[in-house]
Amino acid sequence: MSRSILMLPGDGIGPEIVAEAEKVLHKINEKFSLGLHFQSALVGGAAIEETDSPLPDETLDMARKADAILLGAVGGPQWDKRPMASRPEKGLLGLRSNLQLFANLRPAILYPQLASASSLKPEVVSGLDIMIVRELTGGIYFGQPRGVRELESGERQGYNTYAYTESEIRRIGRVAFEAAQQRGKKLCSVDKANVLEVTVLWREIMEDLRREYPDVELSHMYVDNAAMQLVRAPKQFDVIVTGNMFGDILSDEAAMLTGSIGMLPSASLNSEKQGMYEPCHGSAPDIAGKGIANPLATILSGAMMLRYSLGEEKAAGAIEAAVSKVLDQGLRTADIMSADGRKVSTREMGDAVLAAL
Amino acid sequence: MSRSILMLPGDGIGPEIVAEAEKVLHKINEKFSLGLHFQSALVGGAAIEETDSPLPDETLDMARKADAILLGAVGGPQWDKRPMASRPEKGLLGLRSNLQLFANLRPAILYPQLASASSLKPEVVSGLDIMIVRELTGGIYFGQPRGVRELESGERQGYNTYAYTESEIRRIGRVAFEAAQQRGKKLCSVDKANVLEVTVLWREIMEDLRREYPDVELSHMYVDNAAMQLVRAPKQFDVIVTGNMFGDILSDEAAMLTGSIGMLPSASLNSEKQGMYEPCHGSAPDIAGKGIANPLATILSGAMMLRYSLGEEKAAGAIEAAVSKVLDQGLRTADIMSADGRKVSTREMGDAVLAAL
Ligand SMILES: CC(C)[C@H](C(=O)O)[C@@H](O)C(=O)O
Ligand SMILES: CC(C)[C@H](C(=O)O)[C@@H](O)C(=O)O
Repeated sequence: MSRSILMLPGDGIGPEIVAEAEKVLHKINEKFSLGLHFQSALVGGAAIEETDSPLPDETLDMARKADAILLGAVGGPQWDKRPMASRPEKGLLGLRSNLQLFANLRPAILYPQLASASSLKPEVVSGLDIMIVRELTGGIYFGQPRGVRELESGERQGYNTYAYTESEIRRIGRVAFEAAQQRGKKLCSVDKANVLEVTVLWREIMEDLRREYPDVELSHMYVDNAAMQLVRAPKQFDVIVTGNMFGDILSDEAAMLTGSIGMLPSASLNSEKQGMYEPCHGSAPDIAGKGIANPLATILSGAMMLRYSLGEEKAAGAIEAAVSKVLDQGLRTADIMSADGRKVSTREMGDAVLAAL
Repeated sequence: MSRSILMLPGDGIGPEIVAEAEKVLHKINEKFSLGLHFQSALVGGAAIEETDSPLPDETLDMARKADAILLGAVGGPQWDKRPMASRPEKGLLGLRSNLQLFANLRPAILYPQLASASSLKPEVVSGLDIMIVRELTGGIYFGQPRGVRELESGERQGYNTYAYTESEIRRIGRVAFEAAQQRGKKLCSVDKANVLEVTVLWREIMEDLRREYPDVELSHMYVDNAAMQLVRAPKQFDVIVTGNMFGDILSDEAAMLTGSIGMLPSASLNSEKQGMYEPCHGSAPDIAGKGIANPLATILSGAMMLRYSLGEEKAAGAIEAAVSKVLDQGLRTADIMSADGRKVSTREMGDAVLAAL
């Protein structure tokens, strides 16, 4: 069995952290005889520089053929003035939509070794373990029509469309209910059904699905309240399901509750379980090239890849155990550094995980 | 000089908390000879029960004529199944749009006496004082077209429109720049300009305005990052300006950082400084009628009303000082109760503020 993994380092700290994850995956590949083959390609700003497109055809082609994709991050200030259609982010969004990676799984987990990094009180976050299921190929990110038009009055108006069909809602709903079944059996669907028609339909379909998953306790929450409850008492949540835009906001908020966003991986899956895996954090242009970025979120994204797209639970577990071990050893990159930690570089952290494997 | 104040108690705990605020305003009216006249009217679920409309013509009429409005809260589970157009929330949204109350000011302030109520570590939130300026009569809340339609495939699609014109952005921008001028001179505009065209225009207009306010330091932040930064290091912010939907989410998140949302007032102003004032919290149907709700956010909304719509700074300050005094005395409603506090009812809290005046 031969399976191909596409590495997309991208921009900012992307290349540095993906390099460490690649080392780890090579080692795991040997150790567990997984038959993985690695390729790499350009995306985002890096692709713009070489090809003038944030998602070159060649990259998209390789992505379609790959069994799984590991992405670093895209974007940076040097491309911020470009028109929307040719920004680095379009590379990422293009991959998501072309591969129909509609299910974005974002765990927010507090690592006990890093509990003190949280800005929240220990009793509020200790043991935190939430899974956010974000719809990733619909909603206002992709809704048409969109743009800037001139009104009769002569002034301009910017506009976007927030839309979901029943089937789009149903398929992400199923992923969320199934995730809840495998966890604490509690699902909270987040919407703004007191104001937005599109989320009235969202709520209706989630209610519909409830009958198919009688073992899951479904609740609904308005997005403003969810943003509050995550701060007030985040442990009330098990799985949260929501649309693309609300999911973008709430998953970042939830990630930050742990205080160590440099630790959090994510998976974006389509209905064939083909997936793109990436750290929750961004390209962090301010620290790019300094060798101080935390590679653990990317390494853990590699573990998620083994689990969700390749069905290699044991290999995934081995990576996760190795990460836990280096944390126990007190190794810390700058972002998670604490008084009693030992500060290491990006590469030293990757090497330590390798050694722990 | 005679000025008219319209009281809109609304639903849930609304009537209880507005009653306390009214007592306080009556006393202040006498003490400072303000010449205020009070009326009251129905809105939200309470109006639906009597008139079948969440915003009866009579109420709208009185609201237009009033110099200022004090609102309790609207909404409750008994009206949640109603069609969008006849829900209690439409009463609130109708007031906002008919009166063109486009500028929503939501302070998130940590009261030193209540510092321990926050779920965040004391060093992260002590001294917190942020002002969120939320656009309130545009964006996706009011964008057209909206609804649920049947596609050719036979399935339904829900849709809403997120739109802003240049002039809508400019007028809220000015309010925010001016607020920043009177505070710490730092303004952070929150958008999603890497994905949404409407917020590209938003960012452009904010940049334009920068020239008119050279003393204010303007920055831009993506909404997902803002949701994170509020958790990580909220004191980095002075004034935040953003659209209706992002403002709904971020202002609730920011309010909850203080741990005492029962303390936070808000103001919604139009260009004539006519305003509607209301607590940041909702109608809390679960505790309605029990006499335990915290009336202080509503009382402080009354103070904001005196300051912003009536120009009575001294009277506003007197109310705020009285509230501070009762907190110093250790009086606490259930929501802000702590080990060394003395628990009081809604009415006892109102009476204590009266006594402190
Ligand atoms: C880079 C950006 C387009 C992206 C998004 O908004 O989806 C990012 O914030 C994320 O959450 O993966
Ligand atoms: C009740 C609801 C319509 C309202 C809103 O979303 O604006 C509320 O959440 C608020 O923030 O005032």
